[in-house]
Amino acid sequence: MTQMDEARKGIITEEMKAVAKSENVSEEFIRRSVEKGTIAIPSNIARDIEAVGIGKGLRTKVNATIGTSTDILDVDMEVRKAKVAMENKADTLMELSVGGDLDAIRRKILSITNIPVGSVPVYQAAIEAIRKKGAAIYMDEDDMFTAIEKQAQDGIDFMAIHCSVNKETLKRLKRQGREGGLVSRGGAFISAWIVHNEVENPLYKNYDYVLEIAKEHDFVISLANGMRAGAIADSTDRAQVQELIILGELVDRAREAGVQTIVEGPGHIPLNEIAANVMVQKKLCRDAPFYMLGPIVTDIAPAYDHIVSSIGAAASASAGADFICYVTPAEHLALPFPEDVKEGVIATRIGAYVGDMAKGIHNGELDLKMANARKKLNWEAQFESAMCPNEARRIRNERPPADPDTCTMCGSYCAVKIVNEWLDDASTDVFE
Amino acid sequence: MTQMDEARKGIITEEMKAVAKSENVSEEFIRRSVEKGTIAIPSNIARDIEAVGIGKGLRTKVNATIGTSTDILDVDMEVRKAKVAMENKADTLMELSVGGDLDAIRRKILSITNIPVGSVPVYQAAIEAIRKKGAAIYMDEDDMFTAIEKQAQDGIDFMAIHCSVNKETLKRLKRQGREGGLVSRGGAFISAWIVHNEVENPLYKNYDYVLEIAKEHDFVISLANGMRAGAIADSTDRAQVQELIILGELVDRAREAGVQTIVEGPGHIPLNEIAANVMVQKKLCRDAPFYMLGPIVTDIAPAYDHIVSSIGAAASASAGADFICYVTPAEHLALPFPEDVKEGVIATRIGAYVGDMAKGIHNGELDLKMANARKKLNWEAQFESAMCPNEARRIRNERPPADPDTCTMCGSYCAVKIVNEWLDDASTDVFE
Repeated sequence: MTQMDEARKGIITEEMKAVAKSENVSEEFIRRSVEKGTIAIPSNIARDIEAVGIGKGLRTKVNATIGTSTDILDVDMEVRKAKVAMENKADTLMELSVGGDLDAIRRKILSITNIPVGSVPVYQAAIEAIRKKGAAIYMDEDDMFTAIEKQAQDGIDFMAIHCSVNKETLKRLKRQGREGGLVSRGGAFISAWIVHNEVENPLYKNYDYVLEIAKEHDFVISLANGMRAGAIADSTDRAQVQELIILGELVDRAREAGVQTIVEGPGHIPLNEIAANVMVQKKLCRDAPFYMLGPIVTDIAPAYDHIVSSIGAAASASAGADFICYVTPAEHLALPFPEDVKEGVIATRIGAYVGDMAKGIHNGELDLKMANARKKLNWEAQFESAMCPNEARRIRNERPPADPDTCTMCGSYCAVKIVNEWLDDASTDVFE
Repeated sequence: MTQMDEARKGIITEEMKAVAKSENVSEEFIRRSVEKGTIAIPSNIARDIEAVGIGKGLRTKVNATIGTSTDILDVDMEVRKAKVAMENKADTLMELSVGGDLDAIRRKILSITNIPVGSVPVYQAAIEAIRKKGAAIYMDEDDMFTAIEKQAQDGIDFMAIHCSVNKETLKRLKRQGREGGLVSRGGAFISAWIVHNEVENPLYKNYDYVLEIAKEHDFVISLANGMRAGAIADSTDRAQVQELIILGELVDRAREAGVQTIVEGPGHIPLNEIAANVMVQKKLCRDAPFYMLGPIVTDIAPAYDHIVSSIGAAASASAGADFICYVTPAEHLALPFPEDVKEGVIATRIGAYVGDMAKGIHNGELDLKMANARKKLNWEAQFESAMCPNEARRIRNERPPADPDTCTMCGSYCAVKIVNEWLDDASTDVFE
């Protein structure tokens, strides 16, 4: 039985209990939400991990993506990247290697992680077709399903599956045209395959088979967004919205089958379109958890796309998105190194936390602890309340103040100190 | 005559022409906006700078703050920080030194800059009182006005003057209480002064004299926000809103006198309160240009406050704020070094640019150039469209791809390449 099946029978699983505890909500709320499909708990039956809940009413989660490329194939570095992501408190990891021994790398990453791990199985299907047959267009249907099956057996907890890149969405895309084209790798593989083979996408046509495999292993289907805009100029266009309608239908069918889903969203999108995108997704997909990729709110800041995306993450989480894929400083330029992973996770966590405060998931209790520590000039308590205490300590210690109560910004003229001395005990008579 | 006086006489000054040109709007629009006070052009009569317009209908501007402290008194470093700010395209600079020979440092910074330079004159008044008389509370009224006069003569283009920290705002503050207290340094000096001397703030009581000096030198008064919250827990409280009402009255009086103003805003504030803060300020201050300090949308990320603040900048600019003071990674920890200045300016510029797209100041024309360059895999054109080309080049060059068309992220499996090859020329017949 899947988590969803159990929820429907009124069973509160160990995973649901763990999620309820870590989110400080009731177990029954989690069970009902998993039953409805508004919360997903990615946890393959083959894996023993710390369960993470993604969806309405929960803290916005942050995903870090790692993986080799054909140019940089360093498995040890990918292991380090996975560890850096976990150390910096990414909630989930996607292992998207496309270079080297894909099975071995996946198993290695699964073996060293205790958080949900996701994948994009069509990469493996396409790459094996390229290696064996010379091109991704020579994949056959079995290659696609075999990759899903194999990765499910290995324990992958959630899979981005490109079901909705089909003739209908591609027709809309072609009719409309685009400035930036497609930037989804999975979407590109499937599109090329459809064009060459002139038949429908098997992952759409045989979606019931996808559901069957998902049900057997109880992985969450992350319904992939192949049409997401790769450029601000193409945001919220007809191709994307057409795909979203189809994604909504696929959510319904998964729920009927007792399979958990999350739905991927953009991508490149201006700040003022984010709230509408979240609302439309939530409506069309009946409150399925929404997984934003970034979003990237301007195209012009490569090398700083983690900051661009932190803005997008905050706005998305604030508007109701549930899950955010990080973006690193290397985005659009190169494969991320471990330090990029760190910066990407932190920037995205900041955005998610800020958005969660705006949507009322928390009330800034940690902010209050920090405020009180600052008022008392208690630096140890400030570091304890900080999201990144080591980095904060480093900056302060590099530039130590003469008076250990203060910092080198104001030195002797510390506003807090002046106010503590003069204002706190002042009689209000003075001000009448 | 001040810029505002000239605007009222129908005169279009050289400064207005320069602003119209750089913003690509009509000269008459600038003149009318300066007349109304919805756009300010900080340009002291003693200085010859590139005029910058701040206000409604213009690109959101970014301020970088520099200055010595008592702990780190390195004038050469402050000069470097000013240069780094200008190289990274800060629109204005505030010189807020509190350590060393304040007059000499100010004059040095004015001599090497061609952008508007701002100051906080009460710092100098307070520090000279501390040096000569032992404490800021021993300032006399003349010390405050003398500092304004001297800094105006030196050519300061805009001055943050703490007129609204008065008995009325302090009474509201005391009645209400706060978690984080006051964090405005100028606000702290004035508050302590009022409490000790038990008389009204001279900058409020004798505001007409402030206006007289401003009129003589035509500097812009940046009406300082002494009550801004220094903690999320204190955001948008009665003390802040009380001060804002008074600031609105001071804007009216400045306009009557022909003196340009901008109004400072928060501060520490959750994401979901930003739009309301901008709206209320614009209403109470009759569309005076709004100068956001940050804002900082969570207290818990010291070492990453430039990212926190980039989120706040984007939301503020998007909601109608006109001018943003940067925040650096050293905020709340130490005096910024030149590399912090760089990161702070870039993060804030990203936020301002993203917000400007959202409020329709631009339509992402640069984003479209980048999108087209990406689609064509034209890397030189990508760098030319980038906000920070050097940093983007560095990341790419550190990890060069085997195929110079692609990058090391996807290597052989570049989505753009696949789409260009397969999808662009595909007949739509395939999809019917």
